[in-house]
Amino acid sequence: MAQITFEFPDGRNQAFDSGITIAEIAKSISVSLAKKAIAGKVDGQLVNVQAPLTAGGKLEIITADSEDGLTVLRQSAAELLAAVVKREFPGVRLGRLAADEDGFYVDTEKDERQISADELDDLADKMLRVIKDNASVKRVTLSKDNALNEVSGDRYQTELIKTLDSDEIPFYEIGGQLVYAQVVAAPSLKDLKHFKLLSVAGAYWEGKSSNPMLQRLYGTAFFKAADLEADLKKRQEARERDHRVIGNNLDLFFVDPKVGAGLPYWMPNGATIRRTIERYIVDKEVANGYQHVYTPVLANLDLYKQSGHWEHYRDDMFPPMKMDDDEMLELRPMNCPSHIQIYNHHIRSYRELPLRIAELGMMHRYEKSGALSGLQRVREMTLNDGHTFVAPDQIQDEFKKILNLMMEVYHDFDIDNYTFRLSYRDPENTEKYFDDDEMWNKAQTMLKGAMDELGLDYVEAEGEAAFYGPKLDVQTKTALGNEETLSTIQLDFMLPERFDLHYVGEDGQEHRPVMIHRGLVSTMERFTAYLIEMYKGAFPTWLAPKQVQIIPVSDEKHGQYARQINEKLQAMHIRSAVDERSEKMGYLIRDAQTHKIPYTIVVGDDEVNNDTISVRKYGEDDSRELSMDDFTVEIMKDIASYSRDETKDDKTKEKVDK
Amino acid sequence: MAQITFEFPDGRNQAFDSGITIAEIAKSISVSLAKKAIAGKVDGQLVNVQAPLTAGGKLEIITADSEDGLTVLRQSAAELLAAVVKREFPGVRLGRLAADEDGFYVDTEKDERQISADELDDLADKMLRVIKDNASVKRVTLSKDNALNEVSGDRYQTELIKTLDSDEIPFYEIGGQLVYAQVVAAPSLKDLKHFKLLSVAGAYWEGKSSNPMLQRLYGTAFFKAADLEADLKKRQEARERDHRVIGNNLDLFFVDPKVGAGLPYWMPNGATIRRTIERYIVDKEVANGYQHVYTPVLANLDLYKQSGHWEHYRDDMFPPMKMDDDEMLELRPMNCPSHIQIYNHHIRSYRELPLRIAELGMMHRYEKSGALSGLQRVREMTLNDGHTFVAPDQIQDEFKKILNLMMEVYHDFDIDNYTFRLSYRDPENTEKYFDDDEMWNKAQTMLKGAMDELGLDYVEAEGEAAFYGPKLDVQTKTALGNEETLSTIQLDFMLPERFDLHYVGEDGQEHRPVMIHRGLVSTMERFTAYLIEMYKGAFPTWLAPKQVQIIPVSDEKHGQYARQINEKLQAMHIRSAVDERSEKMGYLIRDAQTHKIPYTIVVGDDEVNNDTISVRKYGEDDSRELSMDDFTVEIMKDIASYSRDETKDDKTKEKVDK
Repeated sequence: MAQITFEFPDGRNQAFDSGITIAEIAKSISVSLAKKAIAGKVDGQLVNVQAPLTAGGKLEIITADSEDGLTVLRQSAAELLAAVVKREFPGVRLGRLAADEDGFYVDTEKDERQISADELDDLADKMLRVIKDNASVKRVTLSKDNALNEVSGDRYQTELIKTLDSDEIPFYEIGGQLVYAQVVAAPSLKDLKHFKLLSVAGAYWEGKSSNPMLQRLYGTAFFKAADLEADLKKRQEARERDHRVIGNNLDLFFVDPKVGAGLPYWMPNGATIRRTIERYIVDKEVANGYQHVYTPVLANLDLYKQSGHWEHYRDDMFPPMKMDDDEMLELRPMNCPSHIQIYNHHIRSYRELPLRIAELGMMHRYEKSGALSGLQRVREMTLNDGHTFVAPDQIQDEFKKILNLMMEVYHDFDIDNYTFRLSYRDPENTEKYFDDDEMWNKAQTMLKGAMDELGLDYVEAEGEAAFYGPKLDVQTKTALGNEETLSTIQLDFMLPERFDLHYVGEDGQEHRPVMIHRGLVSTMERFTAYLIEMYKGAFPTWLAPKQVQIIPVSDEKHGQYARQINEKLQAMHIRSAVDERSEKMGYLIRDAQTHKIPYTIVVGDDEVNNDTISVRKYGEDDSRELSMDDFTVEIMKDIASYSRDETKDDKTKEKVDK
Repeated sequence: MAQITFEFPDGRNQAFDSGITIAEIAKSISVSLAKKAIAGKVDGQLVNVQAPLTAGGKLEIITADSEDGLTVLRQSAAELLAAVVKREFPGVRLGRLAADEDGFYVDTEKDERQISADELDDLADKMLRVIKDNASVKRVTLSKDNALNEVSGDRYQTELIKTLDSDEIPFYEIGGQLVYAQVVAAPSLKDLKHFKLLSVAGAYWEGKSSNPMLQRLYGTAFFKAADLEADLKKRQEARERDHRVIGNNLDLFFVDPKVGAGLPYWMPNGATIRRTIERYIVDKEVANGYQHVYTPVLANLDLYKQSGHWEHYRDDMFPPMKMDDDEMLELRPMNCPSHIQIYNHHIRSYRELPLRIAELGMMHRYEKSGALSGLQRVREMTLNDGHTFVAPDQIQDEFKKILNLMMEVYHDFDIDNYTFRLSYRDPENTEKYFDDDEMWNKAQTMLKGAMDELGLDYVEAEGEAAFYGPKLDVQTKTALGNEETLSTIQLDFMLPERFDLHYVGEDGQEHRPVMIHRGLVSTMERFTAYLIEMYKGAFPTWLAPKQVQIIPVSDEKHGQYARQINEKLQAMHIRSAVDERSEKMGYLIRDAQTHKIPYTIVVGDDEVNNDTISVRKYGEDDSRELSMDDFTVEIMKDIASYSRDETKDDKTKEKVDK
């Protein structure tokens, strides 16, 4: 019989007969290892303990106490879930199943109603029953014909098996069901004690939107109860903070992949928040010397060839549109070339520098559909973009001005959980960067100098700079734990070269400006997502879609008074409304709280008689009886001050003043 | 010899020998006609009087006193200009030449510097000299080889002649030059007395942006001096009002066909105007119960298949973009389907109606490049769009509400030169329209009723309705005399069907709403173009990009005082600036007038000593000495009242109140 040789983790090599299994190899080492082995790994590939091996390689025996062990546990859970679903819902079709770092899933499709979230606990109970009755997972193989026969009526399983180039198709016998072995499961389910089925969501077959949508059942599993508990708690917290969940609850936005993946629709509530942010940031920038413009989202592809985007960034760009006259139009991936058009429309003088061009610039990025998420990862976005054109010796000063402006903006939004990262070029590989040593050295020193002058903490990242210049990023974390860049200031020596930009200096000669790309609050989409998560949906008054909810105790007796108050508030541009639904008072008040409306006003007999209102602020336990005048002063001050927490103010202010 | 038969305008038929010319036919009728004949027309095709005719048809003899005569005059002028250019600039290449209702043009290309506008008068003089010396235009024909030899070195003429399927290529001998006869010229230039060369502009060869750009020389010509004079005056007036000219002078916007035809860049000045309009109209709509949203400019093509746009409107749509997964994404041609998504995101109740969804919605229309013009005709535009979803019995009331809002908006912008047009379906061809007789009759009656109730004048246009419902358009005229639609209110019975829209009625049953499409101020592009022309660039204070220009008599002595005033004004969000250029006072004041800045403030010794300012309002002859407090009150009132002419106010108000 042919021999195959394995290399063990300790470097030892050993030959075995071809066809040996992991179970047998483990047993040849020790009985206890054989008992603990739940899978093997040959050359990085997981293999079932019962699968006959026909080729050698680097070998590991997988046991519970490892990352691979956890994967195998979750894969076992997925196969078990598939078996239970198959038994409980005759005629169900099964798509892919898999495990990942978060848990596991099984795709399903039924003819009549789909599996609902309500049924998950029941399915989990049935999984537990199988484990209790017979925890063994037996691996069997069928010929291709028999395998196809076994899954006949299930187009997805049929499709999966048809692509296999083998006449020994592996199946598992679990709980009396024969299920196609898509992944490596453990030989026993005895370790599968601490698991939970979490949710149901739609998922296209093979991830293609032109394919049918299946129901994906999600779950997770751990070896230890404490790990499961901690994970569920973390999930709960993330869910409460997840901007997609809050966005849905507060009716802020939605995305419908059928109409366009990564293309959000902003409902009136979300649009009000966005409009408030937009006006705030534009006014702030105009007051700080920025000249706002509007430039088209489309341009001739040549523009992005000249800028270098087409060469270096094409994968993230939308397909060009071919027009009459062979013109190729392209949705812009960035706004910089557009602002260069604005700069270049006139001959510029040193007297105009720093010239600050800004825009709420819509742009399009071809994100892969799998990467899309709510407002955080989208394909169409509007960037709070700005480009400052400076003389080289103005870099440090302008960088400080931008930083100060950024800190002012953070202050107004009450943002304080972020870190600064300065990115330099790699000193070992300077040839990988735009070729101007002196410029790099001077610029990096300037950025660092500015940060130090302002007394700001930062990390330095060598080799993280863009090709065209060093940069500063402001990093934050999303509810799901992903790191995101909230703001950025990037120096650029390259585009001024590529577009041959110049200004007439004091000496009457032409000079080359440096460009600074800067986004204070990133895109409207990402920033709103960030704020939703940061505020957990409880927006400060100045940003809240509805600022005041007025509830008459009895519409008949107090409705008119309520509407008078509403009109007065609206006349002052306060976003208020009367809740005219004929529901119980307690319900209406709770509903206002659920929608996190900053002020709830209740008016009943007392208020009508005293010409007052009863005001309860979101997050406070008690209501206060106020005159309309007093309330007006309070809410106007609240809005004008961006509802800032004054205790925090001094701390941030200190930083900025430095 | 073969005979050919002509039918004369009086219906008489007559046969002639093949090869006869118009000159000979005219002579056969009368000597005086032969003298007056400047061209012929056979089956609608102009022919030279000297060209031998080889086929019969309907025949006209063209004389000076006709529209065709004017065309021939201008075509003669174009050929003469081509001859003079060829003589004056040896080696010049000639592109197309032609006449149209506005005049004539000749495309030219030179190796060194191009022909400039300064040279036009000189060229015109040389044309006159030719006419005086020898007015005859002799038609000669060359064999194709000889013709190509004659134009060798001129790639454009060569290209034109190569496409001809004939061995008798017509040329004219004019002023000693042999020029290819592209168009029909008169046999003599004696009628060409009243003409003018007007301008030079770039024009792509054969209109394709991938081809070289030639210099197009424009001119016009008339038979009578008075006609030329009137035309030149009209041109001058249109030029002074033309939004493209003013847009350039006031640095409001530019379009660069190389970066994208019909894709305007809004410079800071224009962007300020647009932002002011946008905020005004959004605030106005929100105060009137509209819910503003943001929806994506891209959607799956299926959306526009469902809406019917792809079927009926494809020629005006951009090419779809093919994504991974075979998804087809399309730039939206209209916003209605997007707003339907917003409507359909929730189950709607009769209590929510009328539901008013609005947006500054960007959309893209594939206008032909020849139709593009400044901000008036563009390919990317942002529409002040709104869709109201109403129960059928709410149509009249909602229509009135929209009309009143529109009139309020017109009032604020001081717009009063417009006409209303009610468009109904064609009563003779009701099958051409959405099939619901009762709905049409009711809706048309409702619209008319509302107009009458409001006491508004209107014209009724049967057969001008859209397929999907009747509408009201508000019509205005551009500086160039084109009619434009400024506002529109359109009923739509069709889209609610196509998207199966409904609301739950008071009866608990599902009902079909009616959609009302409405745009109050059309697109930001078109509306801004309209306002530029209406105000002739002298924007009222609230819209002006720069509201106050402050000029210190001496920067040394009064500069600091000027800057203090500036800071005070800017703190009140007034767009002011100090003119710090070291130019003569008179020049700076004139410059502020040229830029049509609403307020010019001059500060000198008197003002510094008295703590006052010297204010001159645009359009007023004298300046006034005011305290800053008084000026502040004046300008704030001016801005808050939209700088309205109070004498007009009452008139419009009357209309609205009715």
